[in-house]
Amino acid sequence: MSQTRPHNIGIVLFDGFELLDVFGPAEVLANTPGLEVNYLSKHDSPVSSAQGVRIVPTMRFESFSGDTLLVPGGRGTRSLVQDPEFLRQLTALASSADIITSVCTGSALLAAAGLLENHTATTNKNAFDWVRTHGQKIEWKKQARWVHDGNLWTSSGVAAGIDMAVAFITHFFGEETASSVTNHIELIVNSNPDNDPFAV
Amino acid sequence: MSQTRPHNIGIVLFDGFELLDVFGPAEVLANTPGLEVNYLSKHDSPVSSAQGVRIVPTMRFESFSGDTLLVPGGRGTRSLVQDPEFLRQLTALASSADIITSVCTGSALLAAAGLLENHTATTNKNAFDWVRTHGQKIEWKKQARWVHDGNLWTSSGVAAGIDMAVAFITHFFGEETASSVTNHIELIVNSNPDNDPFAV
Repeated sequence: MSQTRPHNIGIVLFDGFELLDVFGPAEVLANTPGLEVNYLSKHDSPVSSAQGVRIVPTMRFESFSGDTLLVPGGRGTRSLVQDPEFLRQLTALASSADIITSVCTGSALLAAAGLLENHTATTNKNAFDWVRTHGQKIEWKKQARWVHDGNLWTSSGVAAGIDMAVAFITHFFGEETASSVTNHIELIVNSNPDNDPFAV
Repeated sequence: MSQTRPHNIGIVLFDGFELLDVFGPAEVLANTPGLEVNYLSKHDSPVSSAQGVRIVPTMRFESFSGDTLLVPGGRGTRSLVQDPEFLRQLTALASSADIITSVCTGSALLAAAGLLENHTATTNKNAFDWVRTHGQKIEWKKQARWVHDGNLWTSSGVAAGIDMAVAFITHFFGEETASSVTNHIELIVNSNPDNDPFAV
């Protein structure tokens, strides 16, 4: 269990984010006592997921002052990796956070913003070859449910974000708290980051 | 594989619904080709989840004409089981649907509306004793990740809804389609309804 517990997580929303990339981890995080979850966006208006349904953000990018950032993937990332304004906003958000996490192709956004340099990271399998074209000196690990490297946590595709969120809670809040959350939501957990059946 | 494939699923939203009860199954269903997912509510205004974040519904209850209904759980169910207007709306929605599904304490709402009579069903473990006080002749099965009885599919707590959604897709669309979806979202599936580690 780490000494520096996170208290306030900001989930970065953008049009075309993948639903479960956000709400899988959010379910785990929001059920952890002492952890506040905010949903960040450029504007106040609802944000469209890749699956169509729209979510009302709780806070604008510039108002966030939490300690942890979660960046989801989804087809919206395809254009955002080339959007200088978004990457500048992401860099500003990341610079004020102690811990940066991503799910699925969210790591392409972190890579494009230069936030993964000299680190090991992972991403989803279907988009692996596309994601690794971003950034310079990044060690991309294909067989990994998630990768924890320093203050960076990156997960594999979509549902892997849930496993990463549980590992994150276990790391910072301890096994007992994590078990309490996973029992409450009846989540069958994969607690081994190397157990990645989708890498073969 | 069943002959009568569902085409249009309506997810019933209400204030205090549990996030992953909705967006776990929604991720699986919305990634299945030929399946449309709608988010139903009493009003047009955003609906608050039990975890705070608000969702914009896509359709009012009275406008829905799909073949399948999904009723999530969450703390909002505690008052809704005693809300005659809501139960009347739920009964009307169910009467026009061919298939009715629930996640977690969503089955308390179905039971309170009389929709589970003479059927076998399940629900989550933490609220089991409360849920079974609703309805008359219902066989509540405690050790079950989900129960499929005729046109009724009920799942255990929160994350179990994801396993039920995969079983649902396997039943109606076949193994190949289900595998394609679960590989795409890198979901480690529990395909055995009797494998319920939270029942012990």
